[in-house]
Amino acid sequence: MSKLKRVGVLTGGGDCPGLNAVIRAVVKTSLGDYAAEVVGILDGFEGLVFKKVMPLSWENVRGILTKGGTILGSSTRANPFAMTVERNGKKFTEDKSADACRNFEELGLDALVVIGGDGTLTIAKELRDKCGLKVVGVPKTIDNDLSATDRTFGFETAVITATEAIDKLHSTAESHHRVMFVELMGREAGWIALYSGLAGGADVILIPEIPYHTPRLVEKIERREKYGMKFSIVVVAEGARPVGGKMSVIEKPDQPWALPRLGGAAQRVADEVEKLTKKETRVTVLGHLQRGGSPTAFDRNLATRLGVEAVNLIARGEFGRMVCLSGREIKSVPLEDAVGRQKLVDPHGEMVRAAAATGIEFCAAPEK
Amino acid sequence: MSKLKRVGVLTGGGDCPGLNAVIRAVVKTSLGDYAAEVVGILDGFEGLVFKKVMPLSWENVRGILTKGGTILGSSTRANPFAMTVERNGKKFTEDKSADACRNFEELGLDALVVIGGDGTLTIAKELRDKCGLKVVGVPKTIDNDLSATDRTFGFETAVITATEAIDKLHSTAESHHRVMFVELMGREAGWIALYSGLAGGADVILIPEIPYHTPRLVEKIERREKYGMKFSIVVVAEGARPVGGKMSVIEKPDQPWALPRLGGAAQRVADEVEKLTKKETRVTVLGHLQRGGSPTAFDRNLATRLGVEAVNLIARGEFGRMVCLSGREIKSVPLEDAVGRQKLVDPHGEMVRAAAATGIEFCAAPEK
Amino acid sequence: MSKLKRVGVLTGGGDCPGLNAVIRAVVKTSLGDYAAEVVGILDGFEGLVFKKVMPLSWENVRGILTKGGTILGSSTRANPFAMTVERNGKKFTEDKSADACRNFEELGLDALVVIGGDGTLTIAKELRDKCGLKVVGVPKTIDNDLSATDRTFGFETAVITATEAIDKLHSTAESHHRVMFVELMGREAGWIALYSGLAGGADVILIPEIPYHTPRLVEKIERREKYGMKFSIVVVAEGARPVGGKMSVIEKPDQPWALPRLGGAAQRVADEVEKLTKKETRVTVLGHLQRGGSPTAFDRNLATRLGVEAVNLIARGEFGRMVCLSGREIKSVPLEDAVGRQKLVDPHGEMVRAAAATGIEFCAAPEK
Amino acid sequence: MSKLKRVGVLTGGGDCPGLNAVIRAVVKTSLGDYAAEVVGILDGFEGLVFKKVMPLSWENVRGILTKGGTILGSSTRANPFAMTVERNGKKFTEDKSADACRNFEELGLDALVVIGGDGTLTIAKELRDKCGLKVVGVPKTIDNDLSATDRTFGFETAVITATEAIDKLHSTAESHHRVMFVELMGREAGWIALYSGLAGGADVILIPEIPYHTPRLVEKIERREKYGMKFSIVVVAEGARPVGGKMSVIEKPDQPWALPRLGGAAQRVADEVEKLTKKETRVTVLGHLQRGGSPTAFDRNLATRLGVEAVNLIARGEFGRMVCLSGREIKSVPLEDAVGRQKLVDPHGEMVRAAAATGIEFCAAPEK
Repeated sequence: MSKLKRVGVLTGGGDCPGLNAVIRAVVKTSLGDYAAEVVGILDGFEGLVFKKVMPLSWENVRGILTKGGTILGSSTRANPFAMTVERNGKKFTEDKSADACRNFEELGLDALVVIGGDGTLTIAKELRDKCGLKVVGVPKTIDNDLSATDRTFGFETAVITATEAIDKLHSTAESHHRVMFVELMGREAGWIALYSGLAGGADVILIPEIPYHTPRLVEKIERREKYGMKFSIVVVAEGARPVGGKMSVIEKPDQPWALPRLGGAAQRVADEVEKLTKKETRVTVLGHLQRGGSPTAFDRNLATRLGVEAVNLIARGEFGRMVCLSGREIKSVPLEDAVGRQKLVDPHGEMVRAAAATGIEFCAAPEK
Repeated sequence: MSKLKRVGVLTGGGDCPGLNAVIRAVVKTSLGDYAAEVVGILDGFEGLVFKKVMPLSWENVRGILTKGGTILGSSTRANPFAMTVERNGKKFTEDKSADACRNFEELGLDALVVIGGDGTLTIAKELRDKCGLKVVGVPKTIDNDLSATDRTFGFETAVITATEAIDKLHSTAESHHRVMFVELMGREAGWIALYSGLAGGADVILIPEIPYHTPRLVEKIERREKYGMKFSIVVVAEGARPVGGKMSVIEKPDQPWALPRLGGAAQRVADEVEKLTKKETRVTVLGHLQRGGSPTAFDRNLATRLGVEAVNLIARGEFGRMVCLSGREIKSVPLEDAVGRQKLVDPHGEMVRAAAATGIEFCAAPEK
Repeated sequence: MSKLKRVGVLTGGGDCPGLNAVIRAVVKTSLGDYAAEVVGILDGFEGLVFKKVMPLSWENVRGILTKGGTILGSSTRANPFAMTVERNGKKFTEDKSADACRNFEELGLDALVVIGGDGTLTIAKELRDKCGLKVVGVPKTIDNDLSATDRTFGFETAVITATEAIDKLHSTAESHHRVMFVELMGREAGWIALYSGLAGGADVILIPEIPYHTPRLVEKIERREKYGMKFSIVVVAEGARPVGGKMSVIEKPDQPWALPRLGGAAQRVADEVEKLTKKETRVTVLGHLQRGGSPTAFDRNLATRLGVEAVNLIARGEFGRMVCLSGREIKSVPLEDAVGRQKLVDPHGEMVRAAAATGIEFCAAPEK
Repeated sequence: MSKLKRVGVLTGGGDCPGLNAVIRAVVKTSLGDYAAEVVGILDGFEGLVFKKVMPLSWENVRGILTKGGTILGSSTRANPFAMTVERNGKKFTEDKSADACRNFEELGLDALVVIGGDGTLTIAKELRDKCGLKVVGVPKTIDNDLSATDRTFGFETAVITATEAIDKLHSTAESHHRVMFVELMGREAGWIALYSGLAGGADVILIPEIPYHTPRLVEKIERREKYGMKFSIVVVAEGARPVGGKMSVIEKPDQPWALPRLGGAAQRVADEVEKLTKKETRVTVLGHLQRGGSPTAFDRNLATRLGVEAVNLIARGEFGRMVCLSGREIKSVPLEDAVGRQKLVDPHGEMVRAAAATGIEFCAAPEK
């Protein structure tokens, strides 16, 4: 077993509940089991490029197990290979990967634990390829769409938040004969919508993997009414789109500098339903609520186990790998087998069929 | 004490958690303490006009204490004095109040418990004035804006839902240096926004009673940034409006038949802030979530106590009154003293000042 | 208005959710509105006697609004007039009140905010009487048994925790035909048991104010069974006792040094019921859970408003008073009108009668 | 595919959240996908022996997805092969399995879905062996100790309830320098204690699989104190026992008819610690709380997927099997491979080591 001296850790991409639990596990395992120091890299890869760091001690991780967010900060855009830098008031994109590599050396790190999603882990792999940076990945995606692990932390917390919202909408929908729409996260993968719609007993779930056929949605709502159920609950992933249509984007004509942003998927379909059925509709948009809050017990545990295993991998000298959950076990896979492989909802898979068996409609276009 | 034989009960207006607890208390008290029957009137005053009723027994109210919504259904538009009726495919508005009065007699009711807000209770008072209908009111407004009672049930549940949302946004806002906007209920009264913003440690609260001055909002966000806090949480009541501006309405040019609907207040101010500060913003719209869910312990208890007292008033022959909470006590006031008196947030009152003392900004226009 | 320079604050007695919110409000108001320093006294009056203090800045109170407990620590036994001190391995009780008075002077405090219950506030009053110590009290009792305020913070949080427990027991009780007992806090005042039993739809509530008659309890359970309800939920305040009996104490014959401790009230009555009815019983003891957790929105707000007002009182030179809630308003009363006046459940009051009207039994001995 | 006509379903053993979700899925799938009737067998195998049944329609399962318990009732002791029957006031044990077999025929069932734990599924297997009863098992154990499935529903809900309790104890423990003990379910398997202790950041976890060495527990508490942490949280499975000792049983000398019942494990160790360390201790006993409440989103989904698959198995004529979760997939195994194989915590496994890496002690006796 190699003698560990100093471990680095960073969090990249959108935050999700459980990041702090991973950081805590990395710190406690390094200090306690290996007597190694831990260096926290701030704001994702931005901190590695510009050497923004903080030492992490027992004190820093006290009480963070139950807290959402990340004490290290994150960045959704910092890519060392294409860094946005400002000079003389102008913005340039530059390759700063050499700085990242050099700082890794200068910080005297044995290895770097990179906690992130597909984008962040791809950068980790590329830095490994470029300068032999020793990395171990910890998978993070609130959308649960990485195929190399059975589950990612944060996903369950998001699903529970979303399910509680659907539970709450039920009582008020029943009292007032309305169609309730709730917009959930999921640009490309509809897992949050599928899991929370199934758990919340939704009537309809619209996900990116199954473009929806509006007439079928209207028919479902009207069929329910015919059978005496004057309300319906429609769960809409933000990336849901009609058959042949596009995702709904919040346009900002006066802000050309802003990136296009998803949004309004639920409002769009609600407006259409209201027009076609003359029934009142109401829209709830959970937005970043789904990224917040204290991680559930299982997310904390998954995050902790992954963090501990990441340090163990480093101690065993197994770099370039990503830790993962497989069944009940914590294992690891090579980074190259982990990135670029998105796990989408199978429109004909067991979960969709189980949902359909309980009466949930996905409103796919009828097959010809 | 009069000998009770048959008590009627209806719920009118928007639903809120605790309605079922009132119904349950009315039923249990009538059956248990007075051996009187209870008749549930369905869908608010619509049920009285068209005689849609159901008998209510012990069985009907089992298990409903903890459930949101109303087992009697409600209606937000049914006014016996101006009822929308359909004949030959056309819609007419007719005065059906005589039908309501006649049905009250035909049902053999000693009195009618009317659970509703200002609009519903005003109708109750007018029916009383018209034909001597014996009514007892139970105040219901999720906005807590009735001046004749210290508190209405449902309000606390809504505030707790909203506060949990703000708590969740905190962690993700801190991780990403964003300005988070959350839109809460409150067209004319900002109580939900004030209570949950104060409880959630918001940085800014925008309410209808204090038109906001956008430059001041921007200044607050930038001042926080200067002191190292790169995120801000802004709570926006749906009825918030800029100084000299109007409330934000979801326009539906292709649906001229639809009532104008509030909405988009948070998105509007978020867009403006994003433009002025170049900081990323994110919007959450809780919508009907705030009306849903199981009532909190205190809302259940308040609702139960009001329901019990309503029946006791009837048994004592004290009609034309509304039960209410005053300090720790359940009391009652004449209906004419209860309706038409909205309780708004005092822009210079103790709660606003307490919020200001903890650093919350309301962004009023600077006094000249 | 007097010019404030330095405000002290301490928390005494058992902890309850909302203490940190008061501390935060005291600090923010002093720093922000009055530019005064704040000194935190550690571990209740022990800190004043032994001068254990810490300065409190903006940084110290960041993020504590939502946290239970108290960052200042507390002590349930530290009384400056009868302090336990250890010398040469022996314990003595000494009057250290002069030290407390002297330290108040040496710390240069304008006044001391004392957050505590009846015992703590009585000490504050006695220090005021002894050496003119300038104090302002903030009422704290999780049992809500101070008569000089309509409500104390922490109480609601405890009630919500207890009600959630009762809600959970319902489903499992119904499935298995059992009698479920849940023991809640309340040595002398049964408010927590009353509020949460009423909110949770308990079948029986046993409180200290109404000694219970076991035959009546058995009769209630058997009557329910006769009507087809094979389960019952019995809420037991820890101070409940049978007619003519004593409170249940956990005895520790081998630990004569330990104070007698309440406990086992629910187990005791459960054992008796099991013997008499031959029905299975199960006992849950919530214990300190009721003191824990994040304060509810209302407890946070009440605590904040009281904390702000305490500092305002000091600034106005109004010492020797306790802030309180009266209806919707924050007011204050002289300390001498606040201490020594316990608010107990009135066995014939409106809340007990409302609970009885919904079918809850208190099992008082039948009147002769 | 066989033509289904009538499916039976029963729930046996202790209840746990998710039972209703399975029943709902069985009913919806049978009615919707196969147009088959569903017969609910009441109170576990007791209902099959004495033919206590109810037809199950869409109406019966509306709204039960989110409810704990089981609408069919259960029985923890009903074994058709050794049924307790009462005749002339005396109790006899008789083999009633022939009645169970005959009633299965008389009810015209294609197959019976048996939702239960190891005991209930063993009976199902024995009935299959005896008279060819067509059964499909659905695994249910709140303790998650069946080795043939990766997870059982209800377990997560119990863990979340327990973790919330530990979270709450943290704040009050920190404020008062106490040792908090919380007793959780788990007679033979310590999974609930392990998962919730790890998630709650406990300091010590005592489970049946690792007999505890009291001196080591005392040493841990005193070591924490030495490092300035004056509180500790100790999670105790009800089946925890000292090295060389026995499980803690609530004795009832005056109730010889009562079965011995576990209980008091936490109180026992708390008393010992208090005696040895002279530190105050407090005990919380969650008891049946852990079986109650609304199932979490994941428990609802797991239960639903298992229920759907159980009916699909029947439709495919695959009897004598138990459905299960394997990784992300729903599969099935022969009943004989499912029963009698308990999954215990491995004292040297990855989860225990991960917990130890984060500083949690299990207090095993030191190896010699």
